[in-house]
Amino acid sequence: MAIKLWDLAGAEDDRRFSPYCWRVKMALMHKGLAFDTVPWRFHEKDALAFSGQALVPVIMDGGNEVHDSWTIATYLDQAYPDRSLLFGSDEARTLALLFRLWVERSVHPLLLKAVVMDLYDRLHDEDKAYFRETREKRFGMTLERYGADPQGTLASLRTALDPARPVLGERPFFSGRASGFADYALFGAFQWSRAISPLRLLESDDPLYAWRERMLDLFGGYARAAKS
Amino acid sequence: MAIKLWDLAGAEDDRRFSPYCWRVKMALMHKGLAFDTVPWRFHEKDALAFSGQALVPVIMDGGNEVHDSWTIATYLDQAYPDRSLLFGSDEARTLALLFRLWVERSVHPLLLKAVVMDLYDRLHDEDKAYFRETREKRFGMTLERYGADPQGTLASLRTALDPARPVLGERPFFSGRASGFADYALFGAFQWSRAISPLRLLESDDPLYAWRERMLDLFGGYARAAKS
Repeated sequence: MAIKLWDLAGAEDDRRFSPYCWRVKMALMHKGLAFDTVPWRFHEKDALAFSGQALVPVIMDGGNEVHDSWTIATYLDQAYPDRSLLFGSDEARTLALLFRLWVERSVHPLLLKAVVMDLYDRLHDEDKAYFRETREKRFGMTLERYGADPQGTLASLRTALDPARPVLGERPFFSGRASGFADYALFGAFQWSRAISPLRLLESDDPLYAWRERMLDLFGGYARAAKS
Repeated sequence: MAIKLWDLAGAEDDRRFSPYCWRVKMALMHKGLAFDTVPWRFHEKDALAFSGQALVPVIMDGGNEVHDSWTIATYLDQAYPDRSLLFGSDEARTLALLFRLWVERSVHPLLLKAVVMDLYDRLHDEDKAYFRETREKRFGMTLERYGADPQGTLASLRTALDPARPVLGERPFFSGRASGFADYALFGAFQWSRAISPLRLLESDDPLYAWRERMLDLFGGYARAAKS
């Protein structure tokens, strides 16, 4: 039976923008596991009650419910150790944890700031009030004010990505010679933006641009085919 | 024949504070390789002429000259593959590269800012003019002004270390169950400060404090025994 993944969607069913859900989709493709996605919106908390919490990604694999993208990745390698590993070793998994935390603290906030109004516009109508209320509380200002300078934010974002570029001078992927969970952790951020915003995040001569192209090509162009 | 390491020293021969040289000393201990250090100061550029550049760390291993801490670590695993590896796999090495770049861009600048006057005071007299000139040019202000708020800088430094802490909730070391080059990359920063400043970088309830204690205990308390 295919794994079921609850996946954040916008007003349109097929516009999927959660960076954390993208990590999981790429991880499932990496492992070659069949899965179906269930479009889910912020206001549908009841639909996740079975997981004992209210955030996606959540997967149901046979009788196993697992949530949180990091926990899911760890679960997938443990449950399917004979399929291509997301973490080649405990050492690599530990180092990927810092990589992932770096993405979440250094990249995500700037990316969200750069595209926040594009994101808001593409939300389901019933999600807009929730999103505005929770994010304006978090930012301490209106969404409009928070997102008022996308170009300036974009410049900061490109600088924040500096530690990543020299890695790509040594290897094609952040996990080395082949992609792994660290790649999916950063790639999720780019898919987030790609799904909802026309903002050009990277110049074509940026090593990250070529890396992102490689990521879009993986698994028969799976991520490239997603609605953007 | 023991490996020879040119190691940055202060006014006193045995006060060694280069974070990059500390990485190499820990890496050599990790591999169980015998080595002697040669105290070196910034003004002794001629002494490194054989390496074709002017920065430490430099090692001479038999007839092999290798410089740059990352290049040295890579060399040591290649030259001594049967001794405990600094990187357990190519994947782990690639992920450790981002870790190291994160240390250099997020941790080093704040640490230097916090201890810059302590460092200056402990330099060899003949290094002081060089250090002042090169750093004041880099910072665009006097050393005194750059280092005017060590407590405020310390608060920023502790925040910059945020992505590291959750990793230590999962594993004792950044390289997983045992220490590796990623650990030495961050530990070098702490030894830098420890060698020249009384500033208390970490509170004792910080998970990084316990990690640093474990690092100081490694190899029979090698780093703990260094002049501080």
